Amino acid sequence: MSSTERVLMGPGPSDVPPRVLEALSRPTIGHLDPVFLEVLDEAQAMLRQVFGTKNALTLPMSATGSAGMETCFVNLLESGERALICRNGVFGGRMAEVARRCGAEVTLVDAPWGKAIDPDDVAKAATEGSFKVLGIVHAETSTGVLQDLSPFRAIADSCGALLLVDAVTSLGGVAVDLDRMGIDAVYSGTQKCLSCPPGLSPVSFSERARQVLSTRKTPVQSWYFDLNLIGRYFGDERVYHHTAPVNMIFALHEALRLVLEEGLQARYARHREQAAALQRGLQALGLELPVEESVRLPPLTLVRIPDGIDDRAVRAKLLADHGLEIGGGLGDFKGKAWRIGLMGASATPQHVKLCLGALEEALR
Amino acid sequence: MSSTERVLMGPGPSDVPPRVLEALSRPTIGHLDPVFLEVLDEAQAMLRQVFGTKNALTLPMSATGSAGMETCFVNLLESGERALICRNGVFGGRMAEVARRCGAEVTLVDAPWGKAIDPDDVAKAATEGSFKVLGIVHAETSTGVLQDLSPFRAIADSCGALLLVDAVTSLGGVAVDLDRMGIDAVYSGTQKCLSCPPGLSPVSFSERARQVLSTRKTPVQSWYFDLNLIGRYFGDERVYHHTAPVNMIFALHEALRLVLEEGLQARYARHREQAAALQRGLQALGLELPVEESVRLPPLTLVRIPDGIDDRAVRAKLLADHGLEIGGGLGDFKGKAWRIGLMGASATPQHVKLCLGALEEALR
Repeated sequence: MSSTERVLMGPGPSDVPPRVLEALSRPTIGHLDPVFLEVLDEAQAMLRQVFGTKNALTLPMSATGSAGMETCFVNLLESGERALICRNGVFGGRMAEVARRCGAEVTLVDAPWGKAIDPDDVAKAATEGSFKVLGIVHAETSTGVLQDLSPFRAIADSCGALLLVDAVTSLGGVAVDLDRMGIDAVYSGTQKCLSCPPGLSPVSFSERARQVLSTRKTPVQSWYFDLNLIGRYFGDERVYHHTAPVNMIFALHEALRLVLEEGLQARYARHREQAAALQRGLQALGLELPVEESVRLPPLTLVRIPDGIDDRAVRAKLLADHGLEIGGGLGDFKGKAWRIGLMGASATPQHVKLCLGALEEALR
Repeated sequence: MSSTERVLMGPGPSDVPPRVLEALSRPTIGHLDPVFLEVLDEAQAMLRQVFGTKNALTLPMSATGSAGMETCFVNLLESGERALICRNGVFGGRMAEVARRCGAEVTLVDAPWGKAIDPDDVAKAATEGSFKVLGIVHAETSTGVLQDLSPFRAIADSCGALLLVDAVTSLGGVAVDLDRMGIDAVYSGTQKCLSCPPGLSPVSFSERARQVLSTRKTPVQSWYFDLNLIGRYFGDERVYHHTAPVNMIFALHEALRLVLEEGLQARYARHREQAAALQRGLQALGLELPVEESVRLPPLTLVRIPDGIDDRAVRAKLLADHGLEIGGGLGDFKGKAWRIGLMGASATPQHVKLCLGALEEALR
């Protein structure tokens, strides 16, 4: 196996900075070693800053982003409870599927793929009784839509629900602001705007969500994702639950340091600016962006594939000629659109120029 | 964060060789990149060799060893089905807990901590009707007991059960021999005798177990661990399920290459020989080994803490003076025994000598 250098501009993973790869490869130490526990504490403290929260229960789950989604649902829902789920892409749909597998009764609020969820539709659905959880995707990785979360705390309150948010493709690239938005449970991934390799899923639970955890009538159906157990390792007790993925935590620690060294506001501005430059360039090439400008997600841009262009052939050419990865479409956009990521270390003017130049050449 | 060098002789993680750390830190590439898929294919092929199986469904789950346990149970059990679980330490107990959380009815066969399970006890319990799963731990990490698996296929057959085995601390250090033993489902971890960092859980399912998967009446309660979905990414279709932990797979690939370069039989012999040397040395220091010689697990030796010796003080001294980590006791042995690991790259004469010398000094 030899090293392969790529330029990662798909829907994640994004380019991982050398400092993060170096941290990843530090000698492995024990998961109860005092040195490791200090690294873990620091990583948790930095995660709180990036999430914009004081939540004690803020930690990286030992699995990828979708496991974070499952963690939120299995801990908050019990069989027979109701969940109100907003769906405008793959990940809202996945939320509904995961909630059903918890035995929950799911009410869906749909919007077309590529559009934001209309808060009025959710408010209306919320009048139909009470719900345990209101689930919504902040940054829909399948379509590149950014959802304004500000109306949803009030809507969740109107139906007695906890507000549960997918921030997989926003954390570190777009402000999540947990506490200000009144979010009760959130999950993310490391391989998007944090520019860390895939393998961990940061989650955070508000005090209200913790209260729900500790007053469950039935055990969490997943032992591995049971935050009542995991919280005892990540909290002061340090009770062994499973062997933490030590090296991945080293990498996350370094990735978070890079985020905070840059500064959150500067990082968000960089994502916005590079996305604007990319989008201008794509439009100058005559390409169409199906998502309306007001709800475009800076870290991920959806581009319609022009008629007569072979999706796979173009992506294979970009990879072969430039080592450049962009993403194919999912679901409604499969074969019809590309997803171009500008996440974390991949959100630079060089990335934008390479991508525009390579696409221009491939489409010539 | 600076690098800390440790000598890892606890219950895992074990020392990770430089070649594996180097592979871990290769530039991250996409989880659908053809180069990555080739690495994944090779890693799966090598896993089959180390497991001793031709099972198509052999893959590393994207989470740590306990997630592998949960993967086996959630996929094979449906609510209301019966599981026969052997318990002689923490991990048999965890099996029972995980099975119950799948809604299964659990029948336990117990043996005292530090003893092997008596196959006659299991055969007797197996006469009490039929079971969906018979679960047993091959290498009990909490006690250092190695279970002879040869009687259990016949016992499982006698009650119509699938044979499910925990090989977390045996894989790569003690022969597991899936196909020869007639094991239907197995899980392991990367941070023990494979000497890879923690973060993945290799699993393998026999054709019979796959059949059970594909004829389930209800969906697997865990979306993240659903092998019907995951198998489509790890098989020929390469359908996206979740983002594979790319760098951890690079590391596992290299760790497996090291295992096969050494040769399985040579590796098992090395574990046996170093364990014998350690055990002779410990006894020469006047220390007592609570596990009977015939069932001692080469990769992990249980040592009784002499009266009047402060468990934590000794372990802290070993860590401070020599960077040497050994494990504390769990459950029945908490505060009463140490667990000394000789796993993978940590099973060398140098490790044995350092540990004996350091312990002699600490106990003087």
